[in-house]
Amino acid sequence: MIHFDCDYMEGAHPQVMQRLVETNLEQSVGYGEDEYTKQAQEMIRQACGCPDALVRFLVGGTQTNATVIDGLLHQYEGILAAETGHINNLEAGAVESSGHKILIVPSHQGKVLANDVQRFLTEFYQNENHQHMVAPGALYISFPTEYGTLYTLKELEALSRVCRKNKIPLYLDGARLGYGLAASPDVTLRDIARLCDVFYIGGTKVGALFGEAIVTAKPELLPHFFTFVKQHGAMLAKGRLLGVQFATLFTDDLYLKISRHAVEMAMKLKQAMIDKGYTPFIDSPTNQQFFCIPHSEIKRLGTFSSFEIWAPFGTQQSVVRFVTSWSTREEDIDAFIRQL
Amino acid sequence: MIHFDCDYMEGAHPQVMQRLVETNLEQSVGYGEDEYTKQAQEMIRQACGCPDALVRFLVGGTQTNATVIDGLLHQYEGILAAETGHINNLEAGAVESSGHKILIVPSHQGKVLANDVQRFLTEFYQNENHQHMVAPGALYISFPTEYGTLYTLKELEALSRVCRKNKIPLYLDGARLGYGLAASPDVTLRDIARLCDVFYIGGTKVGALFGEAIVTAKPELLPHFFTFVKQHGAMLAKGRLLGVQFATLFTDDLYLKISRHAVEMAMKLKQAMIDKGYTPFIDSPTNQQFFCIPHSEIKRLGTFSSFEIWAPFGTQQSVVRFVTSWSTREEDIDAFIRQL
Amino acid sequence: MIHFDCDYMEGAHPQVMQRLVETNLEQSVGYGEDEYTKQAQEMIRQACGCPDALVRFLVGGTQTNATVIDGLLHQYEGILAAETGHINNLEAGAVESSGHKILIVPSHQGKVLANDVQRFLTEFYQNENHQHMVAPGALYISFPTEYGTLYTLKELEALSRVCRKNKIPLYLDGARLGYGLAASPDVTLRDIARLCDVFYIGGTKVGALFGEAIVTAKPELLPHFFTFVKQHGAMLAKGRLLGVQFATLFTDDLYLKISRHAVEMAMKLKQAMIDKGYTPFIDSPTNQQFFCIPHSEIKRLGTFSSFEIWAPFGTQQSVVRFVTSWSTREEDIDAFIRQL
Amino acid sequence: MIHFDCDYMEGAHPQVMQRLVETNLEQSVGYGEDEYTKQAQEMIRQACGCPDALVRFLVGGTQTNATVIDGLLHQYEGILAAETGHINNLEAGAVESSGHKILIVPSHQGKVLANDVQRFLTEFYQNENHQHMVAPGALYISFPTEYGTLYTLKELEALSRVCRKNKIPLYLDGARLGYGLAASPDVTLRDIARLCDVFYIGGTKVGALFGEAIVTAKPELLPHFFTFVKQHGAMLAKGRLLGVQFATLFTDDLYLKISRHAVEMAMKLKQAMIDKGYTPFIDSPTNQQFFCIPHSEIKRLGTFSSFEIWAPFGTQQSVVRFVTSWSTREEDIDAFIRQL
Repeated sequence: MIHFDCDYMEGAHPQVMQRLVETNLEQSVGYGEDEYTKQAQEMIRQACGCPDALVRFLVGGTQTNATVIDGLLHQYEGILAAETGHINNLEAGAVESSGHKILIVPSHQGKVLANDVQRFLTEFYQNENHQHMVAPGALYISFPTEYGTLYTLKELEALSRVCRKNKIPLYLDGARLGYGLAASPDVTLRDIARLCDVFYIGGTKVGALFGEAIVTAKPELLPHFFTFVKQHGAMLAKGRLLGVQFATLFTDDLYLKISRHAVEMAMKLKQAMIDKGYTPFIDSPTNQQFFCIPHSEIKRLGTFSSFEIWAPFGTQQSVVRFVTSWSTREEDIDAFIRQL
Repeated sequence: MIHFDCDYMEGAHPQVMQRLVETNLEQSVGYGEDEYTKQAQEMIRQACGCPDALVRFLVGGTQTNATVIDGLLHQYEGILAAETGHINNLEAGAVESSGHKILIVPSHQGKVLANDVQRFLTEFYQNENHQHMVAPGALYISFPTEYGTLYTLKELEALSRVCRKNKIPLYLDGARLGYGLAASPDVTLRDIARLCDVFYIGGTKVGALFGEAIVTAKPELLPHFFTFVKQHGAMLAKGRLLGVQFATLFTDDLYLKISRHAVEMAMKLKQAMIDKGYTPFIDSPTNQQFFCIPHSEIKRLGTFSSFEIWAPFGTQQSVVRFVTSWSTREEDIDAFIRQL
Repeated sequence: MIHFDCDYMEGAHPQVMQRLVETNLEQSVGYGEDEYTKQAQEMIRQACGCPDALVRFLVGGTQTNATVIDGLLHQYEGILAAETGHINNLEAGAVESSGHKILIVPSHQGKVLANDVQRFLTEFYQNENHQHMVAPGALYISFPTEYGTLYTLKELEALSRVCRKNKIPLYLDGARLGYGLAASPDVTLRDIARLCDVFYIGGTKVGALFGEAIVTAKPELLPHFFTFVKQHGAMLAKGRLLGVQFATLFTDDLYLKISRHAVEMAMKLKQAMIDKGYTPFIDSPTNQQFFCIPHSEIKRLGTFSSFEIWAPFGTQQSVVRFVTSWSTREEDIDAFIRQL
Repeated sequence: MIHFDCDYMEGAHPQVMQRLVETNLEQSVGYGEDEYTKQAQEMIRQACGCPDALVRFLVGGTQTNATVIDGLLHQYEGILAAETGHINNLEAGAVESSGHKILIVPSHQGKVLANDVQRFLTEFYQNENHQHMVAPGALYISFPTEYGTLYTLKELEALSRVCRKNKIPLYLDGARLGYGLAASPDVTLRDIARLCDVFYIGGTKVGALFGEAIVTAKPELLPHFFTFVKQHGAMLAKGRLLGVQFATLFTDDLYLKISRHAVEMAMKLKQAMIDKGYTPFIDSPTNQQFFCIPHSEIKRLGTFSSFEIWAPFGTQQSVVRFVTSWSTREEDIDAFIRQL
């Protein structure tokens, strides 16, 4: 059985694991005040070209989204997001649980366009009843999106411009940031750091046991963030576990190297499926691939591989998701292709 | 200037005001434990045909919706509602503020259909990721809807059936309940009380200075409701003010009598506008009337009347809302028609 | 039966009621944008000597406390208060319900002393773990306190100084502000407005049907307060009802005149009880009087008067509270004294 | 420098680490649905003597407390706890952040006594205003307490009895449960499981990299807990990391063995300090030891060891905390003693 269910089926990249083992019995202070954490923070600041950025490590993605969004918003504010946004569907209402409404803007294959954001804001403030409504306080996007698509640099610049013009922070969910950067023809980590107000570098799905690195060049957006993280139950006691992992991932470009591998594996799988006549549901350049497949075929594919049924597509087909990761072995891709 | 802005521009119906004056210097205990409140509760139980119903009086509509919905739901649950639902647009995120997501079902001129609710629930529980999602915990509808439309008895019965089959309470927002009952060809207050699990009888817009009467034949759905109301800041110290008002409104059928008047005035206005060639945006049988009107015409109408610009309609027209109420004078309707 | 249970047993002062009747059928816009509200806001600004103050009217006390405190605090902050503070005991956890911890400072007969506040703040920031703790974000006091006691001008100045030095707003709960001002030898409304950052002028217990006037000379402390109030379910649709009432109370000094009457009645009652040998539990100069009374005596007093059993006092006595108000009639006080 | 700062300075026990390494590249489904998690759940059910218990693994202590407590309580309820309770002081208001007040009962060296709980409940329901107050909905205790003290079996039975009689769940915070069980003369894990309604077995401080195991023999107390955990941002994607760790800790009694070692080290340190004339602040039988030490001595001890300054003790001394753990080496204890 070859698994394409998701990108978090294994533990950590062997180099990450090795560093955790090597440092296991060292003693350090807790809560991210240790030297490994400081080192990782510094490495990320350098990689982002933001020498003064605030960098904080949390454990998981839903936790990170809920904590950052709650930190960015006033209580009377909500967050703009595509209907397809992860926070809107698969995070069990964590954003609403901390009191904030998600304000829906159109989704274009998972992406939000600057024009739609500006239109929302213009219409909102033109509405004579807007004081009775939740004020748009920030914008949420993901890179790659939930459909594996990517913003072009130009699209990202336009979003950044519209957010800054309207004085709402732009927050980017980078749960799979590595896979996005590895696949993008033009967007770099420094672009992300320059154009977004807050974002996170996903570790859980890209080589770490767990962990997400929040980065902001505007630390004033997240005041008293230590206490805030603790209040959200998102503070890891042995904070150095996060520091060790991210320091390893940001040594010798490991984070991007392993991301590139995942994307190559996805491209190979994608091409093979297209060659075999399968229809992509969406043209994704990253490690998530979506195909529309008849139910009988799904059954057959399921005899030698596992994947996620994403959504119904008419009555005879479903959208199916295949996910590769840093740990996908080329021999497994080859074996899968042989059985296609 | 003839005002059709909304149905809460005046104080209370004169008979209500008179009773408040007559009882003003009487002394009574607070928080709704007084005799007037008990009398009003009993009158409402009778009118609803629910001798054991829990009846509680709150001050305003947003407050009532937020308090009841928070009371009905577990924390991991959200509430189903039409996108047009008042709770989704014009209550400043009060529902989300208490931690609950609003789960959108299709709106049919403001109404929710039973089939759509069943489809949502079926698809939700079929989704293999549903444990990562906000569980649908109740259904919100309004009668009349935000567009002045009404459920037929059959539609309401279908909604009730689907909710009971799926074990989620049906909650009806009756901010303008009187106007709905006055206009409906087949739905009575007893039907509402029988088919809904919780609802409220709106006073603010129908003859009271303020006040909404929550009614449920299933008090176990709102345990410790006194404390809950207090915690939501929704407890009126001089609770008897609510009791006196509702007791008056439920004496000699006053609530329905004044509602019928408002609907008659609305029908007269509607017919006159149609006769003059204005196009209804929606066919509303109640006290809210919506028309699509060119901007130049809006300007002219605005010279002798006031109303609300509801929404843009293309680039040359807007949807405009005219509202009558218990206090609308026929002479004003006539004067308005003369100037049309 | 002569009632001393509380100061909200009747409706409104007759002049307030008369104005509500006179204006009842006038038409005005909702939500506090009407002329009566503007007039009342202006009168209160003048009375406070704060020409630029933000003045907003809410319906009740718990609602006002919860809304203002939530507005003043960041989410990671709590509010300092005496253990005896109303928000800590009798508001059903409304403050915690919006996410904020109450941080206890010592109570001196209901009062908080500046030295204790400074000590709390100093020890808090000296604690090396303070980032793991709720940060003190504001101070709550009441005037009069829950025990009827009053701050001297000097005490209030010291509290104001310590709050400003430490950059935390001072919030004063004035549910019974009139009775406090009427009884105080040195504190005026202008002092309150000058020394507190936010406070409210209680109407519910001092002549209004309902209503509390929030005042702050620093509107930036409560940004987007309209939306915030709406979100808390605290927005009255017919906002002018609050404007009419407060405009009446602030005409010809009515608010203070009726407050003085209540205090005079309380002093007469207090002196008579002391003369009869009853022991005050606390020396209150305002409209609430507390006595320690043996249970047998309580029973006897209960045959001709009603009052609240406040707390046990040993096993044979209880603390009992007698409350007068603007509506207390001297003939009732005399009748009560005769039967003592 | 010999470190006694806390019991989470290292990573995981070597056997735990080894199992994480061995299983690192295995593939498994996420969110705790994997085989390792199932195995660990079964081992814990067996160890607890509760074949039908719900066992769920979360990442950290504050997160676990906040999630469980929010799950146990209705929104109008608060949780009883000692003033010294960890949730009341060092969890950044996480409990209040989810809307619940902490109701304080007396602390006896960190412990709560059954009589005090009964007294609180009795007085609460006797209070005629109790509907205006936060209802006591559960009891929080810790074992060992924040002062290292332990409940006797008899005390625990009394607490259990009073909670069941009053129908409020008893929740035990077992952040250091191993150290408590290792030190207790009479309380076993089965006793805890039998007497408490919900509790957690702390991993972070007792051999794991991170992780806490929530156990309840009454799963109906935490309905829809999967969604609830996700909503609280407390769901680990690679859930099997928790399963692997707890399965290792519950193999061959490892959890208790390493706990016993920590307690032995603590006892040796304690005796040596007493022999040297240091004064215990409290008589703790577990891995946390508190001493009152003059400031000059603290300085000297600080030249060769690190520890936490717990609290001031008069003006010349402070209470100092020394903590041992599973990883404390006897040679370090000996070296410390030599330098005392």
